[in-house]
Parts: sequence; structure tokens; C-alpha cells
Amino acid sequence: MGIKYSLPESLTFHHDAIKIELEKVIDCGPPFLCNMLRYHMGWQDEYGHTCSRESGKFIRPTLCLLSCEAVGGDASQILPAAAAVELIHNFSLIHDDIEDDSHERHHRPTVWKLWGQSQAINAGDAMFTLAYLALIRLKQSGIVDKKVIGATEILSQACLELCDGQYLDVEYERRFNVTIEDYLIMAGKKTAALIAAATSLGAYLGSDDSELVDSFYAFGKQLGIAYQIHDDTLGIWATEENTGKSAGDIAQRKKTLPLVYGLQNSKGGERDRLENLYSKKYIEEEDINRITRILERLGARDYAENLVRRYSQKALMHIGATGLDASRQTPLNEVAHFLLEREQ
Amino acid sequence: MGIKYSLPESLTFHHDAIKIELEKVIDCGPPFLCNMLRYHMGWQDEYGHTCSRESGKFIRPTLCLLSCEAVGGDASQILPAAAAVELIHNFSLIHDDIEDDSHERHHRPTVWKLWGQSQAINAGDAMFTLAYLALIRLKQSGIVDKKVIGATEILSQACLELCDGQYLDVEYERRFNVTIEDYLIMAGKKTAALIAAATSLGAYLGSDDSELVDSFYAFGKQLGIAYQIHDDTLGIWATEENTGKSAGDIAQRKKTLPLVYGLQNSKGGERDRLENLYSKKYIEEEDINRITRILERLGARDYAENLVRRYSQKALMHIGATGLDASRQTPLNEVAHFLLEREQ
Repeated sequence: MGIKYSLPESLTFHHDAIKIELEKVIDCGPPFLCNMLRYHMGWQDEYGHTCSRESGKFIRPTLCLLSCEAVGGDASQILPAAAAVELIHNFSLIHDDIEDDSHERHHRPTVWKLWGQSQAINAGDAMFTLAYLALIRLKQSGIVDKKVIGATEILSQACLELCDGQYLDVEYERRFNVTIEDYLIMAGKKTAALIAAATSLGAYLGSDDSELVDSFYAFGKQLGIAYQIHDDTLGIWATEENTGKSAGDIAQRKKTLPLVYGLQNSKGGERDRLENLYSKKYIEEEDINRITRILERLGARDYAENLVRRYSQKALMHIGATGLDASRQTPLNEVAHFLLEREQ
Repeated sequence: MGIKYSLPESLTFHHDAIKIELEKVIDCGPPFLCNMLRYHMGWQDEYGHTCSRESGKFIRPTLCLLSCEAVGGDASQILPAAAAVELIHNFSLIHDDIEDDSHERHHRPTVWKLWGQSQAINAGDAMFTLAYLALIRLKQSGIVDKKVIGATEILSQACLELCDGQYLDVEYERRFNVTIEDYLIMAGKKTAALIAAATSLGAYLGSDDSELVDSFYAFGKQLGIAYQIHDDTLGIWATEENTGKSAGDIAQRKKTLPLVYGLQNSKGGERDRLENLYSKKYIEEEDINRITRILERLGARDYAENLVRRYSQKALMHIGATGLDASRQTPLNEVAHFLLEREQ
């Protein structure tokens, strides 16, 4: 699919090194479960044959490595931490696909769809464990013990937030009184916590300056919220071909930002229509079109896009305020812009 | 229910300290998910009100602390490691109940039955994360960084085996050609790996003698296999009132040791009858009775009970061969005997 050609170099430069590290870690797992994990990563088909398809973009591990380099650290030394972040992200996707009853991811059946829910739960749990084993590999690349433990703590705190965010995401499906504030709390946990863990881990392992670590955490947190809101707009306004998901966020009754805005800013008949459509047992294609048109009329898309810009600016401000050389900030700026302007 | 009165003192002595440590760790999690975890632990009812019911027996954390004391270590210093083992055990139960479609545990609805599968997956994931945060607490009790990382590695390797064992357990449900050897591999991973992690963690944190650690690992591994086989016989021959589970292993099509033995040692019509009964879409009460009688006739119960004794002797031999003072071995002997003679 040749995604590499359209990506900025800062996002592709570390790609192969991350993949090699991830393969080393995943191959330490039990063979049967590993096959499921390698399938999920897009490296093999369901029969165990190597695939020629592209891996994911490795956004989180790349942000981790670029953050490390930005503070003057050596990215090659912290590859295991970058891999750990990607493993946590993917364990969460495997479980999330069960929770959301998602049948497809990247135009292929999800893990649970092929191997059943039970084995998909086990595969996710194994991937979770491998993330911690990856962190222990930091020792071999010369990271001091104290920092290996510190990295474990940063990642674990992010995992707790991730679980909480997933909890809220599922919980909100049943509610119509979700506010923009509720949404932002959920997005901050479900998506931004792990991105903040990625950027702050990079800074933490690459320097001893705790103020820098805080700035990179704040950068990742704001960037992560912007990323989730942008993803929400793509989930409604991008075509299925682009997102690779079988069912959009609307069909899954997700309280995405545009929908939350729509519910808060509609009145009378329109609000009732929105709630009724969202309450249907089966949300059909034409219901999705109706909801989309209502949201457009209410200005939900513009509102969401503005919010993406606002959080993106806040994110970059945190990096700008560090006083690091502009040349060191550039790759992070590039990736941030790419993430928030992507159309898939 | 007053289980304390029938338990040996070695099993009850550390109970309250373990519970206090567990509560400290669990209370660091996100409030909603914590409620589910506290419910699962038997500390609250589903509405969040404190329960007066007994907690679990804390077999694994107790073995961890007793192993530490046996090698001359200070149990109070390694309470966080004991808590971590119990958290891993319980995260696995929460996910296992989904995988096995179990509606009840300890005479109460399982977590997924009350909160749904999605939130139970999230709750299990949160508990898994809390186990790692518990290990980091070892720093505060004076365990050196190197050993905190070593403990993380021991526990993570056990988790990988646990996931693999769960995988095999589910996989075997569909197969009739499971051998005794296959079964022992599965039990070694699903059950014994975490018990071995508990005993070896105790020895590892309580001493610097790697041979002792190996002996305690081997002790835990053999004990764990004996424990699982004993559990299998209880699953068929103990009454529902005693085990607290809603459906026995037969109803869940589990390839327990007595069944595997039965399949391997039956011929012709009897073998067909066993396989047909086990293949039924719904295994009724009278099918269970028929299967049980066939297994008894084949001598499966005696075979299983003999195997428990054999593995139990092997386990205790590993402790005996350490040359540690007899008085230090006694508590571990007591707990081992209790576990393999219990009737619930």
C-alpha cells in the first residue's frame, strides 16, 4: 500500500528499527499466541504465512524515539521502551475490538473474529505481558535500573488511564447526557494517556531534566486529545475505504465529539431525532446519513476541527516553551502536523 | 463462613497483612473499575457496600511469604510482591470467567455477568496493571532496584505461561485426542507457573542464593500441578455447595485429568459413549452423572488421586533437599498438605 511515500521522513526514519525490536519481543511469546499477535500486527496472514502488507505507522513508538532525540538522548538505546508503548497500544486494540464488536481492522478480520473471543482475550493479555518484558530489555541497552523501574511506572500509570478511558467509552454508549467535558476526560484517558506516556518516556530516558519530562508529557497529552478528535471527524466524514474499519463510530453508538456537540447544541425535534436515531437497535446506512447531515447542519464538524487546531497549538506550545533548539523540535512538529491533517 | 477455623495457622497468619496490602494497591486504580475489582475480591457487594464475607484464602501470596521466610527473609518487606501474585491470579480469573462463560464464582455472579463482558475485560486489564504497580512498591520497602526488576521478570514470564495455558485449556475443549502429557503441559502453564512464580519470588527476594530460588521454583511447579489435578477431581466429585461454581468442569467440556485418563483408557462402546456425551450441545445433569460413573469404573479417580500424591511428594522433595532447617520447612509442608487434602 506504499504509505511510506506520503509520510514525513521523521515518521518513517525509525520505522524499520521499531519493527525489528517488536519482532524480537513478540517472538519471545508462546508460539500459538504469537501467531495471533503477528497476524494482528499485519506481518502474517491467518495461516501463518508472511505478509507483504505494510505494518502500522508506529506513531506512538516514533513519538517516543523523537522525544528522546529532541532532549539529546540516543533513540537506538531506548527502542525497547518504544516497542513497549506499541505493544500496549496493540493489546488494547485487540481487546477493544472485542468490546466494540468490531469485525474488521485495516480491511482484515479482527483477531477475535478469526480465533474467537476467548483466544483474543488471551492474545491481548500475552501482548500486555510482552510490553513489560520489552521494558526489561532496556537494561541490556545500558539504561540504569532506576530508570527501568521509572519507565515501568510511567507505562503502568498510562495503562490504568487507558483502562479507565475504555471503561468510560463503553459506559458513554448508554448515555445521552455526555458533555464536552466528559468527552475530553474520556479522550484524555483512552487515547492521550498512552501518547503522553510515549513522549514523556522518550524525554525521561533521554535526559535527567524533570521539567523537560513534564513538558513532553503535556505535549503528548494535548496532542493525543487533538488526535482523538481528528479521528472522530474521520470516523464520520472519511470513507470506509480510507479508515479500513467495517462500521463507523455512529453505527457503534460511540459518543464521539461531533455527536456530543450535536446533542448539546440541538433542541426540540432535531434533538429528539438525533436521540431516536442513535437509540435504534440497528443503525442502518440511511440513519448514518441522516445523523451526519444533522451534525453538519449544527456545525459539529467545524467545531471539532477548530478544537483539533486549538489542542494542537497547545501541544506545540509546550514543546516551544522548552527552549530546545528549533532543529530538535522540527521532527515532532512535523509528526504532529501529519497526524492532525491525515485523511485516513 | 468462618473458613479460618479449619485452616492451618501457616495459611492464616499472613492473611490480614496481605489483605491490607491488596487494598492499598487496588485503591490506586480508577474508582469505577476499582468497585468491580473490590466486588470480585469479595470485599463489597455489587452496589459498593462493604461485605462481611470472607476474602479468598490467599494461597499464592501466602506461599510467596512463607517461601521468603523459609530462606531467612523478612515477609513484611515483600508484601507488595505477594500482592502482585494475587492480583495476577485474580485478573486471570476475571478474564477466565468470560472465556468459560461462567456465571458464578464463590456463590455470586461473576464480574462479566453483572457488568457485561466489555467492562469485565477492562476490569481484568486494570487489575493486571495494578500487579505491576504493586511490584514497584517493593522499592519503598527497601528492596534494591535490581531485584525489583528481577521480580518483574519472574512475574512476567509466569504471565506468559499463564496466557499460554489458558490458550491450551480453551483449545483442548475442541479436541478428544488430548494426552496425559498434553494435560500436564497445560496444567504446568495454566496453574503451576504462577504458583512457581509465587514460591520462587519469595525465595528470590528473601535470599541471594540462586540454587535456593531454583528449588523453590521446582517446589511451586510440582505443587501447582498436584493442586490442579486435585482441583479437577473436586470439580467432578465435590458437590456444588462445596466448590461454589455454578457449572462443573464436565458441563464446560473441560479436558480435566480424570476425563483425559478416561478417554485414553476406554475402548469401543464405552469410549464412544464418553465422546458422544462430551460432544452434546447441552450437557445435562444426567449426562454428567453418566460420565462420572464411566470415569469411576475406569479408575480415573484413583489414578488422579495417585498422581496428586506423586506430584506432592516430588514438590516436597525439592524443599527437603534444600537442607534448610526442618522448622523452616514446616509451614510450607503444612500448606501443601492442606491444599491437596482440601475438599472445597
